[in-house]
Amino acid sequence: MQVRSKLQLKGKRITVAIDEVIKLVTGIFCHAGCSEKVAREVSEHLADSDLCGVESHGLMRTLQYVDQFESDYMKAGAEPEIVINKFGAVEVDGNGGIGIPAMNIATEHVCQRAKENGTAAIAIRNVGHTGRIGAFSEQAADNGMLAIIIGCGGRVNWRQVAPYGGCKAILPTNPYSIGIPGGDRGPVVLDFATSKIAGGWIYAARSADALLPDNVLMNSQGEISRDPEDYFRGGAILPAGGAKGYALSVVAEVIADAMLGPVTTEGSWLMIALDTTRYRDPRTMQIIAEEILAELRDCPPAPGFDKVEVPGERERDYREKMKSKGICLPEQTWQQILALSDQFN
Amino acid sequence: MQVRSKLQLKGKRITVAIDEVIKLVTGIFCHAGCSEKVAREVSEHLADSDLCGVESHGLMRTLQYVDQFESDYMKAGAEPEIVINKFGAVEVDGNGGIGIPAMNIATEHVCQRAKENGTAAIAIRNVGHTGRIGAFSEQAADNGMLAIIIGCGGRVNWRQVAPYGGCKAILPTNPYSIGIPGGDRGPVVLDFATSKIAGGWIYAARSADALLPDNVLMNSQGEISRDPEDYFRGGAILPAGGAKGYALSVVAEVIADAMLGPVTTEGSWLMIALDTTRYRDPRTMQIIAEEILAELRDCPPAPGFDKVEVPGERERDYREKMKSKGICLPEQTWQQILALSDQFN
Repeated sequence: MQVRSKLQLKGKRITVAIDEVIKLVTGIFCHAGCSEKVAREVSEHLADSDLCGVESHGLMRTLQYVDQFESDYMKAGAEPEIVINKFGAVEVDGNGGIGIPAMNIATEHVCQRAKENGTAAIAIRNVGHTGRIGAFSEQAADNGMLAIIIGCGGRVNWRQVAPYGGCKAILPTNPYSIGIPGGDRGPVVLDFATSKIAGGWIYAARSADALLPDNVLMNSQGEISRDPEDYFRGGAILPAGGAKGYALSVVAEVIADAMLGPVTTEGSWLMIALDTTRYRDPRTMQIIAEEILAELRDCPPAPGFDKVEVPGERERDYREKMKSKGICLPEQTWQQILALSDQFN
Repeated sequence: MQVRSKLQLKGKRITVAIDEVIKLVTGIFCHAGCSEKVAREVSEHLADSDLCGVESHGLMRTLQYVDQFESDYMKAGAEPEIVINKFGAVEVDGNGGIGIPAMNIATEHVCQRAKENGTAAIAIRNVGHTGRIGAFSEQAADNGMLAIIIGCGGRVNWRQVAPYGGCKAILPTNPYSIGIPGGDRGPVVLDFATSKIAGGWIYAARSADALLPDNVLMNSQGEISRDPEDYFRGGAILPAGGAKGYALSVVAEVIADAMLGPVTTEGSWLMIALDTTRYRDPRTMQIIAEEILAELRDCPPAPGFDKVEVPGERERDYREKMKSKGICLPEQTWQQILALSDQFN
């Protein structure tokens, strides 16, 4: 089976039934100390990332999350809860647990309040990894919302990216996600790191003994390098779009650490939702959005490209295609997940 | 006097007292048909852009705006007003006038409602040019707000930028601005086009018979070009940060045209405000923001850079420096403004 992946595998892939994977991985997280509910939500989220072709946020994370539970970086038994802070704002306190169920609660809650009030915001604090944040903005957009997710604030532990004009890694890759109802094929979803590449690529290149693309990494002297080892010798990833990605990252860091901080566990997040139906009836909005998106899809491709894509559609198309077939994982990843399951049993 | 400018002038510069400029330009706009209030707000906004060193949005726009009033592209006599749309949301209707006073009203109103409710949004419709949108997010941040401004929607008249992977200009340069209270030197303010360069640079390069920087423009075949004439022969500006700037632009176009549309005059805008004091007391937030920003300012510069800047500080520093000295304009621009004033008198 042909799989869209950024990974160049030495081994082969294996296709597993979605239900089987979710059941197995839910079992692993339960054994690691999660409640049945948390275990299931995390498993479903990871399986969905693989279904969308976003392997970096897929089931391979099972191994990392179990490690992080065992090392007490995250608390397996924690349950997220809605709290009202001392200034009256609504927050989800992750209680030091994994961020995925906290983001699920936050999405549901902020959409509900935006339906009532037109706009709403929610802070998500004391959480570990939040999974693929585009999944939550997509979920909100499916409910008629414009949703904006900004955060991280974890630069003390994750100094990966140089500020524009600087030659030292100071900032995390602080991602942004925005979702909004789209045309006939569903929401437009943007989900990107504010750095030229995600941190994981450095590790992937190191482990594959490969060079990185040009112009994404600098060495400790601020010179462009393609050698991943230069990152570990005091280098830094460049910000996406120069001053622009840098500015987005600074804003995210101020939101997460100065406004919502202090950051614990891994990061803090802000989710803003706005009810689009307060501005236009959904059918008209969809028709006009489809006009815009059709113009983009019809644009003649530039050299080296097959077509122009609409943000969020590639993931959704892949999910549609794969959900009748199953999840197609590197066999090695699947064997590691099976071994972990055997170990717990 | 040394002036920070992107313009390479053939002629010299002249320094004019701020009050004198504002009085003269206010008079011009009054003669063009604006109310005293609108004329003054626009003049003050343009003078402030020059004071901040953002000449592209400064007093040279006086000539363009007067042309646009005369051609009826914008209505000089229009006054913006707050309206409640049929779904109950608050909007500023610019009534076809210039966008600057509409943005002023919107900023004041959205901050007031966010103070009361924690978050608020406002749409700005039926407006011409909105000036420097960073001025409004800065103003909101000065009032303790996180402010996000997104919009445009004017692709039918402003096809300037190719989608990522495409080779035809389809989108406008759809800018974003975000402001948030910062450290000891004031707010962090981000204000950028989602394209690699603003459209004005193409015209500047053409009129100066100059080449553009590398990798910002493609010709009609999608090949990178430095020749501004290629833009006028069916080329396009590239999106900033590739797929990332493109995705931001698509979201802006869907917000402005599908959600807030139909776009009239020039564009539609959405401003979202969130009261940061609902999450942390202002003094603590300022202390932590200053820690973040000081780390960035202290970062060793990369080759070719003097220092790392914090988004929004360059403009503010320049304003502080210049406001006791006056506005330093290209003499030719000032002569044109004087001639326009004489013509009206």
